[in-house]
Amino acid sequence: MAVYTDVSDEELAAFVAGYDLGTLVSFKGIAEGVENSNFLLRTQAGQYILTLYEKRVNEGDLPFFLGLMDHLAAKGLNCPTPVKAKSGEALGRLADRPAAIVTFLDGMSVRRPRVSHCTQVGEVLADFHAAGRDFDLTRENALSVSGWRPLFDLSRERADEVLPGLRNELERELDALEACWPRDLPTGVIHADLFPDNVFFLGETLSGLIDFYFACNDLLAYDLAICINAWCFEPDRQFNVTKARAMVAGYQRRRPLSKAEQEALPLLARGSALRFLLTRLYDWLSVPPGALVVPKNPLEYLYKLRFHRDVTSLAAYGVA
Amino acid sequence: MAVYTDVSDEELAAFVAGYDLGTLVSFKGIAEGVENSNFLLRTQAGQYILTLYEKRVNEGDLPFFLGLMDHLAAKGLNCPTPVKAKSGEALGRLADRPAAIVTFLDGMSVRRPRVSHCTQVGEVLADFHAAGRDFDLTRENALSVSGWRPLFDLSRERADEVLPGLRNELERELDALEACWPRDLPTGVIHADLFPDNVFFLGETLSGLIDFYFACNDLLAYDLAICINAWCFEPDRQFNVTKARAMVAGYQRRRPLSKAEQEALPLLARGSALRFLLTRLYDWLSVPPGALVVPKNPLEYLYKLRFHRDVTSLAAYGVA
Repeated sequence: MAVYTDVSDEELAAFVAGYDLGTLVSFKGIAEGVENSNFLLRTQAGQYILTLYEKRVNEGDLPFFLGLMDHLAAKGLNCPTPVKAKSGEALGRLADRPAAIVTFLDGMSVRRPRVSHCTQVGEVLADFHAAGRDFDLTRENALSVSGWRPLFDLSRERADEVLPGLRNELERELDALEACWPRDLPTGVIHADLFPDNVFFLGETLSGLIDFYFACNDLLAYDLAICINAWCFEPDRQFNVTKARAMVAGYQRRRPLSKAEQEALPLLARGSALRFLLTRLYDWLSVPPGALVVPKNPLEYLYKLRFHRDVTSLAAYGVA
Repeated sequence: MAVYTDVSDEELAAFVAGYDLGTLVSFKGIAEGVENSNFLLRTQAGQYILTLYEKRVNEGDLPFFLGLMDHLAAKGLNCPTPVKAKSGEALGRLADRPAAIVTFLDGMSVRRPRVSHCTQVGEVLADFHAAGRDFDLTRENALSVSGWRPLFDLSRERADEVLPGLRNELERELDALEACWPRDLPTGVIHADLFPDNVFFLGETLSGLIDFYFACNDLLAYDLAICINAWCFEPDRQFNVTKARAMVAGYQRRRPLSKAEQEALPLLARGSALRFLLTRLYDWLSVPPGALVVPKNPLEYLYKLRFHRDVTSLAAYGVA
C-alpha cells in the first residue's frame, strides 16, 4: 500500500489542466503498489489512476514502461493505457516527481487463486508475450541471473539471521544456477511480476493486467516460471500440480513451448524462486525496527526453491 | 492513510451480495481516515465507500454515527449516506469487524484554505447544527472538558520530553479551563472534527462533509471554536483574523451566536486547542521508534492555545 508523496490541490489542479480531461471531481490516495504513489483521480471525463514515480523507479525506464502499456493496449491486451497531455506527452512532472495518468481498469485481484484462474493466467501470459513481440524499446532485466550475486552480496553476512545455514545454501544455489542457466531459449518482453495482485478478474473471467514496472527483455519461459511460483503453491507450502498443469496448458494453447523450454522449466522455476527470495531477503534485513510495514517473509521462496531443486521429472509440473 | 484489515475476495463478494448493488466491479483500499479501514467499492450500481471499523471505534457508537449521516442527508446536508442491506440494516460485519457501505461523495479537500473556504465552512457548520437539532440519539463527548485530565494523566510524566515546562503549563491550563468552562450555552449535535480533510469542495464551492466519527452532543459554539483552530492559522503559526471573521460571519448568517456564546469564544478556542494538543501528545509519545507513520506534532496546538489565552478582546476574532 502506498502513498509516499503529498500532492497539494493547487499543484494537482494545474497538472490536470494540462490534459483534456475536464475539471477534477475527486482525488484519493490508494493502497496499491509498493514502489510508487498511486491516486484515484476522477474528472468530468471519467476515472483514472495517477501515479507518481518514487525513487526506486529509474526515470530512464519510464518511456519503456509507458510505451509498453500503449503498445499492449493497441494490440488488444486489456491493461491501463497512458493518457497523453495536451503537449502530446504521456510522462509529466508533479510534486517534483515523474508522473503519469493512466486509464482505470475494472476488476479485482483474487486472494486464493483456483485452477480456472491459473488457466487464464497461462493464456494471458502467452497473449502478453505475443503482443510484446514487435515492441521496439528494450530494457535489460537487472534481476536476472547476472544480477543475483550482487544482490546476494548485500544480504550475505546476515543471511543466517533469517535461517541458520541459509548463506551456504544460497551460495551453492547461485553457483549451480550461474553454471547452467539456459542462454538459447526464445526471448522477448516479459512481465516479470505477474503475481495475483497484478491480475484482475470480473467474476470468474480475467479482465486485465496491471503494474508493468518490472517488465523487461528476458527468456519467455522464465516469465511462466515466475507465474508458476506465484500462483501454484498453496498456503501450506504444497505445490499444486493441478494448477501448474492448468497454467502451462493455458499458455501452450496460445504459444506452444519448445522441447528445450519445457526441459528448462525446473531450472527456470528455481531461478525465479531465488530471485524473489533474494529481494525479499534484502527487504527483510533492511526494515527498520518497529516499522509498521512488515516485509514479506523470504523463506516462502526458499521452500519453493527447494521444491524445484528436488524435481526429477517434468511430470511434476504436469508437462507431458 | 489507512487500510488496517485485509479482506478476501470471497468474504467481500458474500458481503456485497447482501445488498441490492449488483456485482462487484472494483475494490481498492484508500488512504483516508486514521481510525478505520476504508475501501473504494464499485459495483454495477455505482461507486461507494466501504468502511471497516477498527478497534479505536466503540461499536456501541456506530448506530449514532450511521443514524446521524442518514438524518443529516434527509435534512439536505450533503454527506455520505449509509446504504441499507437487503436485511434493512446499515451496519453489517466483514472480516470480523463491524462494517458499513456509504454513498460516494464527489469533491476534494483543500490543503491551503483561503478566506472563501472559511466563509463556506462557517455556513455549513451552522447548517449542520440546524440539521442535527431533531436527531433523537445522543452521544456524550468523551473528549470534552471532563475527559481532558484523564487524557493528560496518560502523558503527564513524559510531557516535558516534548517541550521542557510543558507539564506545568498544561496543568495550569487544565485548572483554569475546568474552573471556568461554560455550562449554560446552547448545545446540540456537533461534528467535533471538521478539519480541512473532512470538507470537500468542487472547484471553489463546498460540496459536502465527511467523517462523522467524532460527532457528539456538546456546546454548539465549541464546534465553531474547533473550526477556527483548524482553518484560521497559517503554516507560519500566525492567526489569520480575516479568515476567522469570514468563518464567524458565515456561521452567524445562518445561526446568530448569542452574546454569551460570542464572549465564550476565546475560552472555547483555548479548550479546543487543549483537546487536540492532548490527543496529539498522547499519540506522539505512544508511537513506536522507527515507525513509518509520523504522528502530528502536538506543539502546533500549544501555540494555538497560547494565542487564545492571550486574547484580550473579541475583536481578535473579528467579532464586532
